[in-house]
Amino acid sequence: MAGELFTVLPEGTVTTPKGFITGGLHCGLKKNGRHDLGAIVCEVPAAAAGVYTLNAFQAAPLKVTQESVASSSGMLQALLVNSGNANACTGEQGEADARQMRAGFAAALGVDATLVGVASTGVIGELLPMDKVNAGVVDLPAKLTADGGEDFCQAILTTDLVQKMTCVRVSVGGNVVHIAGAAKGSGMIHPNMATMLGFMTTDAKIAPEHLQGLLGEMTDSTFNMITVDGDTSTNDMVVVLASGLADHSEPLSPAHPDWDAFAAGFRYVSEYLAKAIARDGEGATKLIEVNVSGAVTMNAARAIAKTVVGSSLVKSACFGADANWGRIIAAIGRAGQPVDVNTVDINVGDYTVLTQSRPVSFDDAAATEYLKGDLVQIYVQLNNGEGNATAWGCDLTYDYVRINAAYRT
Amino acid sequence: MAGELFTVLPEGTVTTPKGFITGGLHCGLKKNGRHDLGAIVCEVPAAAAGVYTLNAFQAAPLKVTQESVASSSGMLQALLVNSGNANACTGEQGEADARQMRAGFAAALGVDATLVGVASTGVIGELLPMDKVNAGVVDLPAKLTADGGEDFCQAILTTDLVQKMTCVRVSVGGNVVHIAGAAKGSGMIHPNMATMLGFMTTDAKIAPEHLQGLLGEMTDSTFNMITVDGDTSTNDMVVVLASGLADHSEPLSPAHPDWDAFAAGFRYVSEYLAKAIARDGEGATKLIEVNVSGAVTMNAARAIAKTVVGSSLVKSACFGADANWGRIIAAIGRAGQPVDVNTVDINVGDYTVLTQSRPVSFDDAAATEYLKGDLVQIYVQLNNGEGNATAWGCDLTYDYVRINAAYRT
Repeated sequence: MAGELFTVLPEGTVTTPKGFITGGLHCGLKKNGRHDLGAIVCEVPAAAAGVYTLNAFQAAPLKVTQESVASSSGMLQALLVNSGNANACTGEQGEADARQMRAGFAAALGVDATLVGVASTGVIGELLPMDKVNAGVVDLPAKLTADGGEDFCQAILTTDLVQKMTCVRVSVGGNVVHIAGAAKGSGMIHPNMATMLGFMTTDAKIAPEHLQGLLGEMTDSTFNMITVDGDTSTNDMVVVLASGLADHSEPLSPAHPDWDAFAAGFRYVSEYLAKAIARDGEGATKLIEVNVSGAVTMNAARAIAKTVVGSSLVKSACFGADANWGRIIAAIGRAGQPVDVNTVDINVGDYTVLTQSRPVSFDDAAATEYLKGDLVQIYVQLNNGEGNATAWGCDLTYDYVRINAAYRT
Repeated sequence: MAGELFTVLPEGTVTTPKGFITGGLHCGLKKNGRHDLGAIVCEVPAAAAGVYTLNAFQAAPLKVTQESVASSSGMLQALLVNSGNANACTGEQGEADARQMRAGFAAALGVDATLVGVASTGVIGELLPMDKVNAGVVDLPAKLTADGGEDFCQAILTTDLVQKMTCVRVSVGGNVVHIAGAAKGSGMIHPNMATMLGFMTTDAKIAPEHLQGLLGEMTDSTFNMITVDGDTSTNDMVVVLASGLADHSEPLSPAHPDWDAFAAGFRYVSEYLAKAIARDGEGATKLIEVNVSGAVTMNAARAIAKTVVGSSLVKSACFGADANWGRIIAAIGRAGQPVDVNTVDINVGDYTVLTQSRPVSFDDAAATEYLKGDLVQIYVQLNNGEGNATAWGCDLTYDYVRINAAYRT
């Protein structure tokens, strides 16, 4: 998929695109002493786009960030993020606290408050200890550097085990443009955003409306196609900042001759982060990818792929390395989408287990070996139409239960 | 709830209503040698009603049973059930096998094939070993007695740990009428029927259409309000047989003066079985009951109650005895129903944890003790309207993962 339209930069971070600095510190929200406050700051006001959770109980920082974007004509210069406390279901005080975070960081940077976005992740329903946060906000600007990518990644993690960051390079009008992203999230992950925070940076010149359109489109097929446990968080958001400091002259838009390259790179970063979140799902030992083709529509394919990858029984079977295709077909059948019950083909990796809805004998031992790996790919061909989609998730394990039975302790 | 309209009979079984015999035997489908073939037979053709899975991949026996009911004007005299093999996704051969089961049992009993229903539960996608089934079908009639309730219950179980059976007595026109039921199911349990088989018997005189109406109504608020893991099976069905052998003269219908008593008894049996299935969910250590009131509509209340009780995070928290109400409110918010985000009250047992969407300080240690019990009741008052509903489920435990990671081994 890479190669022609874009190049992956293995060492790239969210500061590889021109104009960005980042970093993190420990202000006291996490008991383990790890970074819990971080920021991405741009030299100049950047074109911004965001997508936000559809959970009815949207957390305070999301409201404040949306307000900033709306009142600054789609521009942001800084994103301030804390982990360890979600500032969700915290009422008027929570909203006031989110505003105070925004105002404090804006003052520390010397920019207008409407150019600052805020994000939070962690436990729901507890007020932020604002003395700690305020002190951290004052100290943070001195920590921000072009090498702060890892510190920032650390600051946004909760139960995540690994950092999630990537960067690509594309060519726009013969000039180098970078697109990078960092993300967190491992539990409460489901379509319509998740306990997932995603932050993308680019130095492309692009108007906020085109950036928003691209983000929305890419989110539908990447971030919204992952599920860890079916729970959608109050705090999910993905925000993109475009500094415009790359050297190309013509701003990007769908009419630009290099739009496809930019969109391909953008998609790579989105999909990389989404898959990294799914693979690092709470307790997960493997990434599960479900490819559905031949559905009546793309939306039907998406619904079926998400239902299969979200099925507790399919997830448990993958953990147990059991090629139990009966659970796959049962999940397809309850997705609420039209399917012809006689034309379904299913492959698990290279193993064909069902053809035209009939079991096919396969090498069970070899399939079990395949399922013991860290990537399980399931292919469903419905033979009903042209709708295709891919969804990602992870297996359901003892550790998922352990982590979530004792999260607050 | 009992007392006035009906009386629970602790020793009652599906043969307590007049006219029924039942039993079970081991024909060779289960590796552990336990009963795997059973039947309920009525002395006379009985009024029948059924509800069936909405999974698109409906298993062969469900089609055959629906065909019997349709072609006999809503009458059935016998139900034949096997466990250990679902006869689902087995194509034309599976359908032929289900018909052969029906025909063989009809012949053994000396009744018309259209008076026999069949049901199966177990692994999906394997053909029934018909030599074993046929032999069992021939032997089964001799095993059927008025004392065969336990043998029948045994024959319909798969991963269930306990038998699920109850019986009530109601008065109709001054005469005794019984309503009884037996059920199986513990994994793949979700709204719209589950890997759940329910069989109810009554000696009431009632036309099939009124029985069907009552079953449909009761199913919506009982069997369809339970979830173990969100998966809806290919094989779920609930069938009721009414022998009409009770002594009341006026057949029951909604116009009958004792309809409410009959409906209350019917509801008790349905709810008892539904809760027993949820409590015996795979790996479960406790029953979780979610009561939602004040929703804009009853359907909204149902959707919210099912979302909360089905949340992996809520289920894990209950297993861990953690009064983590943030997960409850996050589940409410993603149910896709209108809610006022400022007016939610939540109680966990007797402990008020949220009032008007604001956290209330509560005795966390005492709440943890409560959550360690085998029944957790969660009360959600949305203060948005008059819609009320209750849903039942169970906690998510290490054993759920263990059972489902190695089901076929």
